[in-house]
Amino acid sequence: MPATDTTRLSLNQITTNRWSLAEALDGCLRAEVPAIGIWRHKIADVGLKESRRLVRDAGLPVSSVCRGGMFPAATAAERAERIEDNRRAIDEAAELGADTLVLVCGPPPDRDLAAARRMVEDAIAALVPYARERRVRMAIEPLHPMYAAERSCITSLEEANVLAEKFDADTVGIVVDVYHVWWDAMLEREIARARGRIRGFHVCDWLVPTPDMLMGRGMMGDGCIDIHRIRTLVDAAGYAGRIEVEILNQRIWDQPGDEVVALMKQRYLSCVLNKP
Amino acid sequence: MPATDTTRLSLNQITTNRWSLAEALDGCLRAEVPAIGIWRHKIADVGLKESRRLVRDAGLPVSSVCRGGMFPAATAAERAERIEDNRRAIDEAAELGADTLVLVCGPPPDRDLAAARRMVEDAIAALVPYARERRVRMAIEPLHPMYAAERSCITSLEEANVLAEKFDADTVGIVVDVYHVWWDAMLEREIARARGRIRGFHVCDWLVPTPDMLMGRGMMGDGCIDIHRIRTLVDAAGYAGRIEVEILNQRIWDQPGDEVVALMKQRYLSCVLNKP
Repeated sequence: MPATDTTRLSLNQITTNRWSLAEALDGCLRAEVPAIGIWRHKIADVGLKESRRLVRDAGLPVSSVCRGGMFPAATAAERAERIEDNRRAIDEAAELGADTLVLVCGPPPDRDLAAARRMVEDAIAALVPYARERRVRMAIEPLHPMYAAERSCITSLEEANVLAEKFDADTVGIVVDVYHVWWDAMLEREIARARGRIRGFHVCDWLVPTPDMLMGRGMMGDGCIDIHRIRTLVDAAGYAGRIEVEILNQRIWDQPGDEVVALMKQRYLSCVLNKP
Repeated sequence: MPATDTTRLSLNQITTNRWSLAEALDGCLRAEVPAIGIWRHKIADVGLKESRRLVRDAGLPVSSVCRGGMFPAATAAERAERIEDNRRAIDEAAELGADTLVLVCGPPPDRDLAAARRMVEDAIAALVPYARERRVRMAIEPLHPMYAAERSCITSLEEANVLAEKFDADTVGIVVDVYHVWWDAMLEREIARARGRIRGFHVCDWLVPTPDMLMGRGMMGDGCIDIHRIRTLVDAAGYAGRIEVEILNQRIWDQPGDEVVALMKQRYLSCVLNKP
């Protein structure tokens, strides 16, 4: 019998990017999607107070706030600003009762990748006391290496693990997104190593060919990633939390949100929970 | 005093893709580029016998033949064909006196990356006796992870090292191409680990933003890679061989070959040999 339980499913709201926060919450309720991942620009659109009211009225758990990070910068003043902005992100996650603040760590300001990585470590270290106090878990999301120059200098699970292990597991964990890590020959080793630190699991698919480096992600089942296998590895490492569907794709954004959510639920069952 | 020695420089002929083999050899002689990397489709254009004559007449060493590989396939019959084609590639490298046959290992035929990787290992194992007999070194080139679905399931230096270490270092080595590995936080560790197995070093640059996933590579100095640092790491691991300039970029291909080669020499000195 195939599994039919959607209790771990969460809509990362970027998947229905045309929807406001209120619309995304309504869409989840209509489709019986039991949780939501919220982006900061959607919070900013209505303000934090109104966002909290909307989330409480909907009664939906917030699986993550996306995203903190973007730490490296050319000057100490800019780096301090980034850290301050991350304190606001921690506040937002705390106010919305989110399990996790996802960290997209940021690109290097110049050719010195090693220096950028040190800036990331220093920034996380600076944020740990504040995150602990607000009871928010920060989770480092290693991004696909093709984003190294423009989005994140943290590009593999091994690197994310090495970095996270410098901190208390209750405060600094990692997020596994299949799109960013599926290619990695050391995936099994590094997912097992992340036991006790996995704070999020994101799914979508790698389209062949890839229509666009940023906006070319696919619905689960439409690409080449063995998502079911990676889900099994993450579960075997002790992760029992939410599984967020996060898709950046203009074609999907242009479809009616209710249709996207319905398809996402169907594919969650056929490609994530069950082996296709 | 900046270094000015171009004795290790080699033109990988894909950089001047509009040139035939004869034209590329002439171009190297005119610009005093002391070696060339040759692609198999350029050999096929004039035949192996004529290619050998052209190379001997030019008196230029052949730093590599690009490329063998493309091993994974859905059926045993197809996989046997690929291995047979690689025997022909080994023949070509031997006939041209090339140091190295570069292996671009090939994409998976389906969602099973682990199975594809086993096919690569099996194919290399099958080719080792033939390569040894013909005194050709095969060199595994890990490709950027963004090519995992379409070009190579071998996507990191660590993975290439693990694979190469299963074989005799004289017959199976690796190629380090800055474009494919620059993002890797474990680069220093894995280049050091490859000591005694590095059979080629390729340079170009990562443009920001990347205009095209395949054809968007840049001239050294036009992008964000710290090429000088990687060259230093490769040298520190004992590599003293050729440094090939390999650029896939339509805009560069559309420029006159002599201008591209002149700029490449200049950038080799300013960004590869010396610290920019």
